[in-house]
Amino acid sequence: MTAFAASSFQPPLYGPPPREQVLDLCNRLSKAKLPVLLLGMRASSPRVTAALHRLLRKHAIPVLETFQGAGAISRELLHLFYGRVGLFRNQPGDKLLAASDLVITLGYEPAEYDPFLFNPDGKCNIIHIDNKQCDRGQLYQPQLELLGSLVESLDQLTEHVGTMEAELNTDFCKDIQRQHSEWRNSANAKPKDSSSPLVHPLHFISTLQDQVKDETVICCDVGSVYIWTARFLRSFQPRKLLFSNVSQTLGVALPWAIAASLVQNPTDASEQKKVISISGDGGFMFTSMELSTAVQEGCDITHFIWNDEQYNMVAFQEEAKYGRASGVTLGGVDFVKFAEAFGAKGFRVQKAGDLESVMKEALAYRGVSIVEVMIDYSSNSELMANVLKSGVN
Amino acid sequence: MTAFAASSFQPPLYGPPPREQVLDLCNRLSKAKLPVLLLGMRASSPRVTAALHRLLRKHAIPVLETFQGAGAISRELLHLFYGRVGLFRNQPGDKLLAASDLVITLGYEPAEYDPFLFNPDGKCNIIHIDNKQCDRGQLYQPQLELLGSLVESLDQLTEHVGTMEAELNTDFCKDIQRQHSEWRNSANAKPKDSSSPLVHPLHFISTLQDQVKDETVICCDVGSVYIWTARFLRSFQPRKLLFSNVSQTLGVALPWAIAASLVQNPTDASEQKKVISISGDGGFMFTSMELSTAVQEGCDITHFIWNDEQYNMVAFQEEAKYGRASGVTLGGVDFVKFAEAFGAKGFRVQKAGDLESVMKEALAYRGVSIVEVMIDYSSNSELMANVLKSGVN
Amino acid sequence: MTAFAASSFQPPLYGPPPREQVLDLCNRLSKAKLPVLLLGMRASSPRVTAALHRLLRKHAIPVLETFQGAGAISRELLHLFYGRVGLFRNQPGDKLLAASDLVITLGYEPAEYDPFLFNPDGKCNIIHIDNKQCDRGQLYQPQLELLGSLVESLDQLTEHVGTMEAELNTDFCKDIQRQHSEWRNSANAKPKDSSSPLVHPLHFISTLQDQVKDETVICCDVGSVYIWTARFLRSFQPRKLLFSNVSQTLGVALPWAIAASLVQNPTDASEQKKVISISGDGGFMFTSMELSTAVQEGCDITHFIWNDEQYNMVAFQEEAKYGRASGVTLGGVDFVKFAEAFGAKGFRVQKAGDLESVMKEALAYRGVSIVEVMIDYSSNSELMANVLKSGVN
Amino acid sequence: MTAFAASSFQPPLYGPPPREQVLDLCNRLSKAKLPVLLLGMRASSPRVTAALHRLLRKHAIPVLETFQGAGAISRELLHLFYGRVGLFRNQPGDKLLAASDLVITLGYEPAEYDPFLFNPDGKCNIIHIDNKQCDRGQLYQPQLELLGSLVESLDQLTEHVGTMEAELNTDFCKDIQRQHSEWRNSANAKPKDSSSPLVHPLHFISTLQDQVKDETVICCDVGSVYIWTARFLRSFQPRKLLFSNVSQTLGVALPWAIAASLVQNPTDASEQKKVISISGDGGFMFTSMELSTAVQEGCDITHFIWNDEQYNMVAFQEEAKYGRASGVTLGGVDFVKFAEAFGAKGFRVQKAGDLESVMKEALAYRGVSIVEVMIDYSSNSELMANVLKSGVN
Repeated sequence: MTAFAASSFQPPLYGPPPREQVLDLCNRLSKAKLPVLLLGMRASSPRVTAALHRLLRKHAIPVLETFQGAGAISRELLHLFYGRVGLFRNQPGDKLLAASDLVITLGYEPAEYDPFLFNPDGKCNIIHIDNKQCDRGQLYQPQLELLGSLVESLDQLTEHVGTMEAELNTDFCKDIQRQHSEWRNSANAKPKDSSSPLVHPLHFISTLQDQVKDETVICCDVGSVYIWTARFLRSFQPRKLLFSNVSQTLGVALPWAIAASLVQNPTDASEQKKVISISGDGGFMFTSMELSTAVQEGCDITHFIWNDEQYNMVAFQEEAKYGRASGVTLGGVDFVKFAEAFGAKGFRVQKAGDLESVMKEALAYRGVSIVEVMIDYSSNSELMANVLKSGVN
Repeated sequence: MTAFAASSFQPPLYGPPPREQVLDLCNRLSKAKLPVLLLGMRASSPRVTAALHRLLRKHAIPVLETFQGAGAISRELLHLFYGRVGLFRNQPGDKLLAASDLVITLGYEPAEYDPFLFNPDGKCNIIHIDNKQCDRGQLYQPQLELLGSLVESLDQLTEHVGTMEAELNTDFCKDIQRQHSEWRNSANAKPKDSSSPLVHPLHFISTLQDQVKDETVICCDVGSVYIWTARFLRSFQPRKLLFSNVSQTLGVALPWAIAASLVQNPTDASEQKKVISISGDGGFMFTSMELSTAVQEGCDITHFIWNDEQYNMVAFQEEAKYGRASGVTLGGVDFVKFAEAFGAKGFRVQKAGDLESVMKEALAYRGVSIVEVMIDYSSNSELMANVLKSGVN
Repeated sequence: MTAFAASSFQPPLYGPPPREQVLDLCNRLSKAKLPVLLLGMRASSPRVTAALHRLLRKHAIPVLETFQGAGAISRELLHLFYGRVGLFRNQPGDKLLAASDLVITLGYEPAEYDPFLFNPDGKCNIIHIDNKQCDRGQLYQPQLELLGSLVESLDQLTEHVGTMEAELNTDFCKDIQRQHSEWRNSANAKPKDSSSPLVHPLHFISTLQDQVKDETVICCDVGSVYIWTARFLRSFQPRKLLFSNVSQTLGVALPWAIAASLVQNPTDASEQKKVISISGDGGFMFTSMELSTAVQEGCDITHFIWNDEQYNMVAFQEEAKYGRASGVTLGGVDFVKFAEAFGAKGFRVQKAGDLESVMKEALAYRGVSIVEVMIDYSSNSELMANVLKSGVN
Repeated sequence: MTAFAASSFQPPLYGPPPREQVLDLCNRLSKAKLPVLLLGMRASSPRVTAALHRLLRKHAIPVLETFQGAGAISRELLHLFYGRVGLFRNQPGDKLLAASDLVITLGYEPAEYDPFLFNPDGKCNIIHIDNKQCDRGQLYQPQLELLGSLVESLDQLTEHVGTMEAELNTDFCKDIQRQHSEWRNSANAKPKDSSSPLVHPLHFISTLQDQVKDETVICCDVGSVYIWTARFLRSFQPRKLLFSNVSQTLGVALPWAIAASLVQNPTDASEQKKVISISGDGGFMFTSMELSTAVQEGCDITHFIWNDEQYNMVAFQEEAKYGRASGVTLGGVDFVKFAEAFGAKGFRVQKAGDLESVMKEALAYRGVSIVEVMIDYSSNSELMANVLKSGVN
């Protein structure tokens, strides 16, 4: 029998990019009329976002996040944040990308938001900053690649770039910012009819936004729920709001929440940090048996189920493509009792007016709990409406 | 848009095999000292088993079933049945195969019981009867293939074969039959300690055997549960006892039971036929969300869970190979409450002495129900013990 | 070490199809206005073609061959032969298929001539005769499958079908026959300019047709050469004219000719039967090193090279699709010297007027020889012209 | 129609590795008793080898090349070169690797020389220097990765490493060097019998070594020919001696030689640089039709064929494994005539004593030529003999 030395693996370290490449990019930035930063998965580590914030404080650039890049912009820099992109090309940020003359990707994989979507005619002027060579394709041909440590790349840019105050307040940018934030004041963000059992997604998101701490991990499942959440829920610390875009792993929220719980709480149960997970009813049932694991492992997880008794993300796309939905009906589950079968706690939002109080109670509960919210998906056909055409500014 | 004619697909029909091939096989049969019939999936349709019974009444041959061939032997011909093979080579039937000088497969795919297992040294004298040419391999090289309709092949054999009464009562065969059936009289087939919460698999199987009707469909999940059930539960009508061997689809029992229920009961709910499904707790949780479907569709299913709070089939093999089990612990689920969360009925066998009465009550219940049985897996290490070596008679 | 019994493998035998299916087909045949037989690879064995001829002598049906079915129609039944199909849908036989109300395939695989080509709108009324169940697809949904021995299927059809003399002489059929055979009288079938070095494909084919014996095996390579040969060279015995359609194995002619030579001539070199192979210059060079094998094995092969110094089948399709050819230029090889380098004999047709005499000399030569023919590919753009549209009669 | 901007792709640039990593490696080097540099494909560019030479001049380290790293050591540093590894583990360099306490790979892919071969027990202490993160595996777990530009990595090492003169002259190293170079004085390196038609591989290689210029590209085919050449032919400039190890592309020599010829000679035919290619007779025949391309493109290539009229690399391994060779016989080709058929020049070494003069004449010939050398493969069974066992020092 052969013995192998125990390997305490550390991810490898990278050095700075070549200086001339940094200067080249500074020069391009100084000439660009509308540069945009597109932040990908590898941009959202604490060390990288700290360096990113140093850069943005010196040189203001509008910023977009992929779903995996969520949380890379702090509260302080929120005026530079134009939202997330990653699914349908109908977001305010998509108009920004279409108008930009210099798209700088940071720690980004093409799979996070396919260039086929944001660069369909191949005219986008792309700069790639990463620790590895890009996957070059017909629609992803960077003019320049800054390769090396992302922190070092950002710090060198900060050192050499000229100062640019937040004078992005062109009418165009102002208009996009407005489109991106006006929902908070819309009727949907509040209970329309407090006695109705149905809660609108924007009402849920604005309520959650006010109750959640910046450092709390939120795991969001795939489904209509993640379209709403990725578009509207803000996050101000990296890797606190987690999505599985690209492979769209249905059922991922609860297992991820268990993992986040175990990683955060290695020793003392009284020191447990709350983890939140959110899913639709269909996605929840995909992996609902993991409640057993969550309870056995002593996790502190509040799991919200947006229940509409169907596979809604499939349904609205079937309706758009084929004129009717098929094979998407679910239902008949008592989620409070379901939770109890596993030794977890069950909550239910009986009417829209109770949302805030039930949410507060559930988040205060230590241990594993399920909160059932009957969701109002009447606006969901808009989620894939008004997609930008090629070449539109 | 092109319109395609609606296709009312009928499986194609086959004619008889060549007559000279039938006579050749009759000749081989007349000379064989210990012929054995190995029945595969395509042998277990009602028309084929009827033809098979006609043959066996004229010319007695010992019979083995693969898991997929279950139920091909009727009560009347039970004296010719030597059990099932399909997993570990340690069954009484394996000794019969090893001693046979003429193994006739009927409607069999090599995947059902790999020739690598029962014919490791390639010396087995094989005849292949099927409606399609066999997948010839190094260890599956039939001396003769009878190709065509299975019914016609069997009927022509019956016509031309000589009469052979059930004079298989050699000491060798008697001994194998005895090994195959002696368990019914063992201590394990009865409650050892009626007040113990633990039920032995053989106790469960003998109790179920006495309560189930021949025409009731039983769907058995993968896991230790299917090893016990495939070896010991008898079935006297084809395609009533269903296993997923080969691909070993964990969680298959309940979804299959729903399908069987829907297929059997197309119109009138009061005419519903009971379907039984059985699984371990791990396998049940794989697809437990389908309880929702079962209830919504108004099925009449009694699902038994053999609960030992672990993945036992993985566990006992890990122990055999690596000396200890790892990553197999489950538990903490209240299955009665779980059933209720879906609008189903929950039963629990509190102690071994209650098994018969709880089973009776559950089978009498119309609708979807779950019956939790704490199972006694203390004998499971024997399931893979005493595997036959190559060339052993 | 385990010893395996030597297996003298014989292909399995099949019996007759069900009688009721035979009668069903006879009934359909009696009502059909324009039935057509499409012969595939498994229709072209000597035993099957003999049975086919018995059927056709009693009941005349127009016949098409796939490339793999070549030679299934004898000289005596030539009036029923409407050519081959298998590549572009622009042949006289394609018009026959489009007009037929009963297409009977015999020993045919969909890959030989994709139903997507001859049945694009799914309206074709198909009967499938084979020894195995068809690969059913959206465009290949037979109304009836006759499964079993092909010989038995044909003989039972012959027994039960009504007599139908060769009264296919409708104007429609006559016109298609005329289209199929008129080329023999065209200018291209003779040397236009006897002193020109260029030989037209039809001139080559008509010359070869007159010199080749029915029993001689001809192996034809892929390339423009096989489109011409499959369309115009007749063959009157099964499996004497061989093509690799479907996978279009470039370079296959010479290796096949070696195999045919070895199979035909097991013992006495003086008893060797001549084998002919034909290829383009590009295809020949793919496997030209096998000349060494041919010579070392003492084969008797005459290999004709249609030399146009390019990959012409690629070229004319590139021109049709992209407006110009690219990367297809070959040339500069002295094939006579090339043959000599391997110890083979080299011939060259210096001018069109010499074709017949050089061909005669080469075919008379015993051993391996190469005959270079400079080919006139000026008509090749027509090979893929005038493709039938969907639903056209 | 969308137009895509023409992309003038440049490989991306990398910066230096982190300084602390460089210092870490310097520290490890200072403590190592027997450090070894293993040079892979990406170590063999002119810029990288120049930086490597700067390092080695300051700090002497024994060097091994993979087949793809050939030529990375200059004549001046030849005393540090211990040969190539990449196929069987029976080379002097393998003893060096087995004894080393610090194996530093440079621009190396595990596929070039599988860690399964040189590190079977996983005890090797590995450092990985490359522009990308390694493919970590059970047997390739570097203690440290220096990631970034290879030139910068080497230059920073040179700057910070202590001076180490070539005091590697331990008895152990001296002995390996001796094993590696003693063949030049062996009987096989000279014509044993000048009148014999057979030339020994070592005689060929020593003769070629003396006639070839350092800057001449030599493309070597796969087969026994590349085992001899990779082990014994020296090369003093990077990417001048080319092998296809790993995928072992039989027939690669001539096509590569054409490519090298086209790349080197873009404009003026009189300025053409000679390219040499070498293959066995079997490998040559795999792609021999490319002679046509070579002549048409006006290349200046001398191609040597080591002719033994069989697939020898297959043959000697069949003999070792199965006791006899099978299906490997070739022959019967007149390569001089073959060359002439393509308009190339053919040479033949009639007897061993003529090798030097024929080689000289052939290399002086401008254009495409073939030189046939009847090769003496009587020593080839030694090529895979005496493989190091695991853990041997």
